[in-house]
Amino acid sequence: MQAFKSFPKIIIIKMDIATVNELPYEDFVNIFGNVVEKCPIITAAVWSRRPFGSLNALEAEISEFIDALPESGKEGILRCHPDLAGRDLQSGTLTRESREEQARAGMDALSSEEASRMARLNEEYKERFGFPFVICARMNDKANILRQLTERCRSERQVERARGVEEVKKICRVRLQALVLSDAPNKL
Amino acid sequence: MQAFKSFPKIIIIKMDIATVNELPYEDFVNIFGNVVEKCPIITAAVWSRRPFGSLNALEAEISEFIDALPESGKEGILRCHPDLAGRDLQSGTLTRESREEQARAGMDALSSEEASRMARLNEEYKERFGFPFVICARMNDKANILRQLTERCRSERQVERARGVEEVKKICRVRLQALVLSDAPNKL
Repeated sequence: MQAFKSFPKIIIIKMDIATVNELPYEDFVNIFGNVVEKCPIITAAVWSRRPFGSLNALEAEISEFIDALPESGKEGILRCHPDLAGRDLQSGTLTRESREEQARAGMDALSSEEASRMARLNEEYKERFGFPFVICARMNDKANILRQLTERCRSERQVERARGVEEVKKICRVRLQALVLSDAPNKL
Repeated sequence: MQAFKSFPKIIIIKMDIATVNELPYEDFVNIFGNVVEKCPIITAAVWSRRPFGSLNALEAEISEFIDALPESGKEGILRCHPDLAGRDLQSGTLTRESREEQARAGMDALSSEEASRMARLNEEYKERFGFPFVICARMNDKANILRQLTERCRSERQVERARGVEEVKKICRVRLQALVLSDAPNKL
């Protein structure tokens, strides 16, 4: 009989908020540490605010923490994000969440023309603003991402910082929703 | 002739502050991203404050950023730290910096009695305060660490939060000094 080989399966069961509230900080940070890319400090901080009434309440705490940071801190969050279709994607060093999101938006299957356009625009954006172009890939397709990157390269630093932070929050929401049951009025 | 095999050597050449100031944010975050354990957002944020007049000035910017965080944010930093002689050391998932620091303090060579005492005290500390015991391992030996952990288990939450943050800053200083030339009055 031939041995059956398969890739390990990861089964993600969404937690309800009561379960979230019971997590010790180590599990909380392990599970939610990357809802803001490479910023486990943020989830580790909001653990102090539990219990959370709902998924929305947890999201609001994260949002509030981000808003209270100085502008340099907000730029810091943006600088923890990888380029879209950039070096980390090519070298396989993206976080799991980013890899999946970029793949779904088609960032891992660009034509060579699209790839060099993307690379050129990413460099232009970073050169101009001192932080990377951040967009919620899960809410946009390839064409839309390229169009927005082109437009936003002509924007102003302050506008882009605020816009980037809003996109960080959208990414955070999508990542949270993958982990926690949403606040349906009737329980399933 | 027998092939010569050796472990790869990592040669670290310290940078002067002028070189630090010229780094694009991506290199800056790659190099300094872990001077505060698992908090690249902090170094990514202080990049906005360059140019730095000296190593001390860079350290002061990091310190100032930490001090300006809400108390939850300071607790968040502590919660990003691994236990001393804990699960991450045993499973090989420590960051490079932590691994070296814990090894130098003898945390990877505890007797089974010391190891269980350490584990018990770590749990007691985390249970009591909601964040881990943080101490600059490079400035303490095994006996000293065990003694302080025992004492600090009986402390108060607010005191321990402040104490932990001071230790984070010491760790940060040691890590920075390994990367950047110190501010000697005469250049070498």
